[in-house]
Amino acid sequence: MAKKVLIVYAHESPASFNAAAKDAAVAALTAQGCTVEVSDLYAMKFKAAATTEDITGGVKDAENFCYAKEIKLASEEGRLADDIKKEQEKLKEADLVIFQFPMYWSSVPAIMKGWMDRVLGFAYAQEKRYSEGIFKDKKAMLSFTTDCPESVYSDTGINGDINVTLWPLQNGILNYCGFQVFAPQIFWDPATGSPESRSSMLEGWRTRLQNLCGEAPVYFAPLDYFDKEKGFLLKPEVKEKYASEECGLTVGIHMGKPLPANSQTKAGV
Amino acid sequence: MAKKVLIVYAHESPASFNAAAKDAAVAALTAQGCTVEVSDLYAMKFKAAATTEDITGGVKDAENFCYAKEIKLASEEGRLADDIKKEQEKLKEADLVIFQFPMYWSSVPAIMKGWMDRVLGFAYAQEKRYSEGIFKDKKAMLSFTTDCPESVYSDTGINGDINVTLWPLQNGILNYCGFQVFAPQIFWDPATGSPESRSSMLEGWRTRLQNLCGEAPVYFAPLDYFDKEKGFLLKPEVKEKYASEECGLTVGIHMGKPLPANSQTKAGV
Repeated sequence: MAKKVLIVYAHESPASFNAAAKDAAVAALTAQGCTVEVSDLYAMKFKAAATTEDITGGVKDAENFCYAKEIKLASEEGRLADDIKKEQEKLKEADLVIFQFPMYWSSVPAIMKGWMDRVLGFAYAQEKRYSEGIFKDKKAMLSFTTDCPESVYSDTGINGDINVTLWPLQNGILNYCGFQVFAPQIFWDPATGSPESRSSMLEGWRTRLQNLCGEAPVYFAPLDYFDKEKGFLLKPEVKEKYASEECGLTVGIHMGKPLPANSQTKAGV
Repeated sequence: MAKKVLIVYAHESPASFNAAAKDAAVAALTAQGCTVEVSDLYAMKFKAAATTEDITGGVKDAENFCYAKEIKLASEEGRLADDIKKEQEKLKEADLVIFQFPMYWSSVPAIMKGWMDRVLGFAYAQEKRYSEGIFKDKKAMLSFTTDCPESVYSDTGINGDINVTLWPLQNGILNYCGFQVFAPQIFWDPATGSPESRSSMLEGWRTRLQNLCGEAPVYFAPLDYFDKEKGFLLKPEVKEKYASEECGLTVGIHMGKPLPANSQTKAGV
């Protein structure tokens, strides 16, 4: 059972469905004995833009400023802005991180992307990524609202397969840092539905939260499937092993085959 | 030939490769007779977070604040913050929009996501999306640096197929607003290469810019392929038409088939 939970939350209105989803998580997890911390990004007026001001005591190479490199150095030397340090401390403590947000333009709102850009700079190294990532003993998940029904995000729907849309967030950010990623909690178009349908969505979320930490994570390919000497491509023996499989390994590492269905939205797929 | 170009640019350092790529575009396009405007987001200290402050004269429903709805209303009524209005004016004028940025965490930096979240609220309607979108007579493209070589973003590479990573940006944002999307200009890991390799990358970009506006755009499925009465799913006759094709229609609308190779990175695929 996860003991410490961090909810990174991005909605301005306490009367929003996102607020209700966040509150439901706080209540359900606290009732299970978890310690729940919420980073309410709008209330904190969290700085979104990644800038030189994030590094105290001057950047090493102002002329050719590279944020990722500078933030990594500053992190090792304790020279990060206080707001970043605080979030990193919360993150280090957490066993489970839940990102609660309204989907804006197929991704997280800018203020939450800013949290990711600025806070996660210490969360990886060349040899410590993906299944060997720094946060490999932690869990993380996306919980979000959309403004459209599920059909539009199917593999024949106009917005395209939600598994594809979620790949950069779930693989490129969460899995990259090593998190075991729980299947996302997707609230399909709560704004258009009735109050009853919203209540029912929240009830489903509360039910899921009862056993959330017992869930299997979403599948991603382990780091040792890739050859670091050869451009981090799949090793020949792995390619061979999966050659006769009908589907690709994951949504991104699809090997030119059909995508594995629901692999970004269902546990263990 | 495009006459007015807007470059939305997100890098803090004038000595960066991104700055050089932006400057190369300004020079090449100006030499062709284009009027080029640059929105230098860091220099402008562009506000990234989408907040109630973006709407002047008070929001309509503060209690249940929904950013997308409020921004749409405020846009129609001329009640948007000045910085948003200014960017919208630039966008309305532009024939071509180039987004120049370093890829942060599989997407645009937060400050650029903020530009998209805040500025594009007026750029769509239920009946005016995708191929019928408000910007259907405009072109747009992504031009970005990564910190890794191309192999890691192949369909057997550790980060997964770049076509998948780009889908939410190119389809979910640019195509959604109607833009004809030019293939992205991807600068693979310029920081690690030699000064000569960087010069050569820039030279390739300059050469491409000579005939950029003559390029075919990336393929996306047209709006009339989808049945708005039935959850915006592909119409049965369209599904049937493409049933015998080896590959899916697009990366997101893949119909359970292999993804069309390079469809997000090569023109006309």
